[in-house]
Amino acid sequence: MSTLTGADLTAICTDLHAHPELAFAEHRTAGIVADRLGGWGYAVHRGIGGTGVVGVLANGDGPTVLLRADMDGLPVTERTGLPYASQETGTMHACGHDVHVTCLLGAAADLAARRGEWSGTLQVLFQPAEEVGAGARAMVEDGLYERVGTPDVVLGQHVMPFPVGTVNLTPGPAMAAADSLRVTLHGRGGHGSSPESTVDPVLLAAAVVQRLQGVVSREVGIAEKAVVTVGSIRAGTQANIIPDRAELLVNVRTFDEGVRERVLAAVHRIVDAEAVASGAPRPPEYEQIAGFGVLVNDPEASHRTGAALGDVLTAHDDAIRRAGGAPAVVAMPPIAGSEDVGELAAAAGAPLVYWHVGGADPALFAGVDPASLAGMGSLPAGVAPNHSPEFAPVLDPTLDLGVALLVGAATAWLD
Amino acid sequence: MSTLTGADLTAICTDLHAHPELAFAEHRTAGIVADRLGGWGYAVHRGIGGTGVVGVLANGDGPTVLLRADMDGLPVTERTGLPYASQETGTMHACGHDVHVTCLLGAAADLAARRGEWSGTLQVLFQPAEEVGAGARAMVEDGLYERVGTPDVVLGQHVMPFPVGTVNLTPGPAMAAADSLRVTLHGRGGHGSSPESTVDPVLLAAAVVQRLQGVVSREVGIAEKAVVTVGSIRAGTQANIIPDRAELLVNVRTFDEGVRERVLAAVHRIVDAEAVASGAPRPPEYEQIAGFGVLVNDPEASHRTGAALGDVLTAHDDAIRRAGGAPAVVAMPPIAGSEDVGELAAAAGAPLVYWHVGGADPALFAGVDPASLAGMGSLPAGVAPNHSPEFAPVLDPTLDLGVALLVGAATAWLD
Amino acid sequence: MSTLTGADLTAICTDLHAHPELAFAEHRTAGIVADRLGGWGYAVHRGIGGTGVVGVLANGDGPTVLLRADMDGLPVTERTGLPYASQETGTMHACGHDVHVTCLLGAAADLAARRGEWSGTLQVLFQPAEEVGAGARAMVEDGLYERVGTPDVVLGQHVMPFPVGTVNLTPGPAMAAADSLRVTLHGRGGHGSSPESTVDPVLLAAAVVQRLQGVVSREVGIAEKAVVTVGSIRAGTQANIIPDRAELLVNVRTFDEGVRERVLAAVHRIVDAEAVASGAPRPPEYEQIAGFGVLVNDPEASHRTGAALGDVLTAHDDAIRRAGGAPAVVAMPPIAGSEDVGELAAAAGAPLVYWHVGGADPALFAGVDPASLAGMGSLPAGVAPNHSPEFAPVLDPTLDLGVALLVGAATAWLD
Amino acid sequence: MSTLTGADLTAICTDLHAHPELAFAEHRTAGIVADRLGGWGYAVHRGIGGTGVVGVLANGDGPTVLLRADMDGLPVTERTGLPYASQETGTMHACGHDVHVTCLLGAAADLAARRGEWSGTLQVLFQPAEEVGAGARAMVEDGLYERVGTPDVVLGQHVMPFPVGTVNLTPGPAMAAADSLRVTLHGRGGHGSSPESTVDPVLLAAAVVQRLQGVVSREVGIAEKAVVTVGSIRAGTQANIIPDRAELLVNVRTFDEGVRERVLAAVHRIVDAEAVASGAPRPPEYEQIAGFGVLVNDPEASHRTGAALGDVLTAHDDAIRRAGGAPAVVAMPPIAGSEDVGELAAAAGAPLVYWHVGGADPALFAGVDPASLAGMGSLPAGVAPNHSPEFAPVLDPTLDLGVALLVGAATAWLD
Repeated sequence: MSTLTGADLTAICTDLHAHPELAFAEHRTAGIVADRLGGWGYAVHRGIGGTGVVGVLANGDGPTVLLRADMDGLPVTERTGLPYASQETGTMHACGHDVHVTCLLGAAADLAARRGEWSGTLQVLFQPAEEVGAGARAMVEDGLYERVGTPDVVLGQHVMPFPVGTVNLTPGPAMAAADSLRVTLHGRGGHGSSPESTVDPVLLAAAVVQRLQGVVSREVGIAEKAVVTVGSIRAGTQANIIPDRAELLVNVRTFDEGVRERVLAAVHRIVDAEAVASGAPRPPEYEQIAGFGVLVNDPEASHRTGAALGDVLTAHDDAIRRAGGAPAVVAMPPIAGSEDVGELAAAAGAPLVYWHVGGADPALFAGVDPASLAGMGSLPAGVAPNHSPEFAPVLDPTLDLGVALLVGAATAWLD
Repeated sequence: MSTLTGADLTAICTDLHAHPELAFAEHRTAGIVADRLGGWGYAVHRGIGGTGVVGVLANGDGPTVLLRADMDGLPVTERTGLPYASQETGTMHACGHDVHVTCLLGAAADLAARRGEWSGTLQVLFQPAEEVGAGARAMVEDGLYERVGTPDVVLGQHVMPFPVGTVNLTPGPAMAAADSLRVTLHGRGGHGSSPESTVDPVLLAAAVVQRLQGVVSREVGIAEKAVVTVGSIRAGTQANIIPDRAELLVNVRTFDEGVRERVLAAVHRIVDAEAVASGAPRPPEYEQIAGFGVLVNDPEASHRTGAALGDVLTAHDDAIRRAGGAPAVVAMPPIAGSEDVGELAAAAGAPLVYWHVGGADPALFAGVDPASLAGMGSLPAGVAPNHSPEFAPVLDPTLDLGVALLVGAATAWLD
Repeated sequence: MSTLTGADLTAICTDLHAHPELAFAEHRTAGIVADRLGGWGYAVHRGIGGTGVVGVLANGDGPTVLLRADMDGLPVTERTGLPYASQETGTMHACGHDVHVTCLLGAAADLAARRGEWSGTLQVLFQPAEEVGAGARAMVEDGLYERVGTPDVVLGQHVMPFPVGTVNLTPGPAMAAADSLRVTLHGRGGHGSSPESTVDPVLLAAAVVQRLQGVVSREVGIAEKAVVTVGSIRAGTQANIIPDRAELLVNVRTFDEGVRERVLAAVHRIVDAEAVASGAPRPPEYEQIAGFGVLVNDPEASHRTGAALGDVLTAHDDAIRRAGGAPAVVAMPPIAGSEDVGELAAAAGAPLVYWHVGGADPALFAGVDPASLAGMGSLPAGVAPNHSPEFAPVLDPTLDLGVALLVGAATAWLD
Repeated sequence: MSTLTGADLTAICTDLHAHPELAFAEHRTAGIVADRLGGWGYAVHRGIGGTGVVGVLANGDGPTVLLRADMDGLPVTERTGLPYASQETGTMHACGHDVHVTCLLGAAADLAARRGEWSGTLQVLFQPAEEVGAGARAMVEDGLYERVGTPDVVLGQHVMPFPVGTVNLTPGPAMAAADSLRVTLHGRGGHGSSPESTVDPVLLAAAVVQRLQGVVSREVGIAEKAVVTVGSIRAGTQANIIPDRAELLVNVRTFDEGVRERVLAAVHRIVDAEAVASGAPRPPEYEQIAGFGVLVNDPEASHRTGAALGDVLTAHDDAIRRAGGAPAVVAMPPIAGSEDVGELAAAAGAPLVYWHVGGADPALFAGVDPASLAGMGSLPAGVAPNHSPEFAPVLDPTLDLGVALLVGAATAWLD
């Protein structure tokens, strides 16, 4: 039994990158994962919450540690120009889940190979459908912990466009709540030359979008934080036909439950009222298409894990410096991105520690103190953020480092 | 040789209705037309301007009269529930071109059968792609009149949601100029949680739509007439991804060349300025996707043709009354719909006479004076306008009447 | 007893122009009028409907003819630079009521001097508060016809920025209905740094204004006519204090009672819904500050009067030509301006004839056919419209002509 | 020589409250201040920066300490219903500067009376025009420190709607930068019935206001803080006259110089582009009417002063408890309000310590931890914020406490 080499990791990651799969459709990815885990002696549980996979390595007495990666890609058309770019039109690993899966496989191999050095139970969990905020819940509701046992701590990581060598671990509230809504606005269709016989849903949708800007600009205080994004607006197909409906996809990010409720109420209030202003024949319809709570890192567990992460960086100082970076564990302010990993911890009643690992070329951050980065909003020019069609972590030494961080964090908890 | 019976006409029309074809793709329709015309002794010219068909019947000395029908359907999903509803998903004869083709076939058969009664040359022209304002021009530019000879008058008709028995013939400006634009607005994409690193094209598009309302409300006088419709707005696919562009389809209707230029200039001015207001990385792009001039009926030729149309109505008084209607030739104010038939007349240097023939159930118009109708904007409740997914002319006696009107108009010009 | 000379008329008019008075405050003007009328033998009735004045000249058997002028100025700051410009800061005869009063005084003098030439009763009525649409109603409700008798016909004229020599008399609907509303929008005030503790009425007001554009652009057909103008928006006094209310003054013009009701309903619907969209603490409040019905000229009476007006123009051909104009009685399409003179006719049950008399320098209209003018919307550059701070009719020969037209129209009805 | 009693303080404060004076017009207030200071032996410097007053008490060797109060009221119409409410229509001490002046007078009296207990130089500075961000600069530019000497530390306080007993002292950035602009938008006026001959500045202004919402909602990140408020919008006076200009008063709050520049640039970009979108005849005009930098408390000096403030609260524990409060020195997040006191410190090259003292009835904050308050945005219902027409600090024990805090802070620095 042997660990994965750097070349192995690169091969796995580029293959996953070339074949991204959308939420709950990660069949190929899950197959690869299950095959590998089985080969290393893990008890493999497949099909939890759809395409979820958990490998369990019971290795004597001691605590149970869950390491988690997410597997799904995004409906984004890749524009990186990489040799291993997506071969699936319109789908891309634009959020780095390929890196997550690869690193967790590397850690699983390493910890299995070195099982003589630790005692306890290791769970490596490959989750579907993180992007839609549904995969963690699906696994939990599908009997996850009844099937694999309940962990004592939940650990995980996300690759970010921070410089290689930078690890961000924010104790307490660390990532945003996110709610996504599909809003259907009803008008009355007709010929474009006779608007007076219609209720124009295009104008209604435009008025809603403009009015929604006021939620953040007028209804959220400066000591609060919120983002309301209309990521999609769609109505009609012809210039001269007034359609009978419009559809908006709205995303709301908040960092506090009270603000979350207030902002969501304001969105509904505005959408409903604008429909009345247009004389809409029917009220708008709402469908919740994703919902993430605030990700909260357990402060004490963060302290313990963060020390281990710092040791890993120190041990990799040479590789980080060769890549142009500098080792640093920082604690940025809460980041606007969202994660559903917290649901795995909450369902287990276990503390959560979730950190961000830099995967960007440090040369792009010349003169920038990593500790001053405040999430994706303050990236230097030329650094593609997550979800961008140009998002492309540098694989070396990010993969090696990602494996080592997971191993280091796990062994901080295993006896 | 015989004329088509009412049952024949209904069979043709319901078959065409069930198999609509989009602009420039009217292959099946053109084939049916060509087969029929050939069988009646017409010299058949196919493939003019793509799928256009012209049948020519040279019948001794005398003037050349062109009767025109348009063949294309619309990208509308039918909701009539008719037994002969469209079998082509997303495509529908929602503007009555199936009726136009059927009536012109009926007239062609009738005039061929009765060729002993008139002298001159008859051209029956089946045009593609009227809905996109491109078919007439395509036929002319493809050498139409070099191939079939130049007519002395161009005649045609359109079925409308007016009561059966009503014919509208407006001398002078009768239908609107229409310009359709595809506008691409450029933003800068990114993650929905970090709008500050993006230029949000959804907000830009919304601001454009709201601002465009001011063109008609503030820049067009009450003695002028204009309609600016944004029939489609499309941007993004995900709630939490800010896209990098938005697309609008804009339709502009006017009745005067000066107003047309002023309104189009205002649209460009507003779109360009809103892109600047958003800090767009690139100026908007414009593509003209359809353009119709004002349809102008020749007053003298209208007078002559209108008399013949009145005679036809009188002759069909019984059938009209049975259907609940009353015969009437009216002259409504200009209608906001558009037509490219005028390009056929202009290219020939011939007068144009184009009328609207009612195809709706008169019972829906109880208490309404047909002469008071002013286009589709003043339809009674329950009457589906052209381009509606519920547009459905009553076939009996509309088809018979449509045939007779074309025959009557043609014989008013043939010796 | 003698008529007024051209110099007399000019002196009266420039004096009135220099001392404009706002609606219902026309005390000085009414005094001048009453003094003059008394001197010419009219029975003078003062204080009808506030500041209204009627002079009655009973001159034997025959019909009763009412000639009407309006007296009030506007809250406009004059910018004509005329030597006789307004001496009242912020008030101006920007609508020509000084000309109206002068011409009616001239006609009153002339008809009194020539009383041997006609038989019947002449009423010369000087109305207050036309600009706010309240003066005619105030006179009627104050017992006008009980006090002075009921006329058989109501005649009047308005000076317009059409070329000298042009008279516009439109039988039927000739001028718009106009409704003016004061809308108070309620928010919740507070410090500009804490918008989240407020309901911002400035944003609410802005959203209302943008949304109101959609009434004309989307809810009024091209065969209809409507104008919705927000002439005033006012909220707050400080940059950093969010006020607790905003006020809009909204003006609605229509030419049909059905359209009028529809548009007013749409205005209310939009304003109410936008207040809800903002989470306003109280619904908006509405105050009707002016209301004019459609002015409808009696067709038959227009025919009779128009002939007389044509005769007057012909008789003044030389003077008109010297001024660079040409005599013409035209019938323009309905004009968007409004008038309350119709209420005087309606209350009397008498036909109304109301015409527009050109008062602008014909040189400014080079190459323009007066018959093609369609109200103030199509004025050549350099011609100041009514209500402009630069509105300035040329007094010679407008005053002479205005007198003669009133005299000619009156004598067409008097025996 | 004696200190002021509680009754004296109340008498001074209610008198000042009843007679508020606007920025740079604080003549009566300055007179009262100068009279009092002179009576207590201060060298009085009047007329610095217009109406500014400084009293200097040189009392042996030692450091120079500057205590500062601001004197100006606001253009707000009082609605407190207090017996000592403003007697000046439209002007009000709605920001508590009456309290500031009173407390500084009390401290000046007390420190003069107890001059045997300390050594050094005391400067008590009464500043004009804080509300418009101009008074501090005016005093500095008028030779303040050349005239009275340069202090070693600048101290001051502001009464806030926090519970009595709470003092907020935030080291580092503590209050926002604030920029206020007057924006004049040019249109072209005309009659409300002919918008097509105008450029409507009301619609332009509305579009600007709506578009400005996007600055905060789309161009400012969640880790940044900014507020853009349009506190006033004004255009037109009549419903049926389209005016030729509109005026906006815009207030921008930021907490970082880079964000400040970015937001101000966005405001200009949007306003300029919207004028182009409207076809405005001239570009907008901008006038800077107020500008405040970020207020930054010196951390070390804050530590030293904060300890003294805590001692004062402890010494007044009984009075605070009687009022229903509890003594607490807290450090809230930065507050969105602005202050120009920092310019006095910057010009002196001296550290600044500026704290907020609670003046609201603690009963209104039942169940609220003062430390959790984050400025005026999180006030409980019923607590009127600064600048509200209902702002009304409770005078007892706020005045006594305010005096004691100033005395305590000063003696922490005086030998």
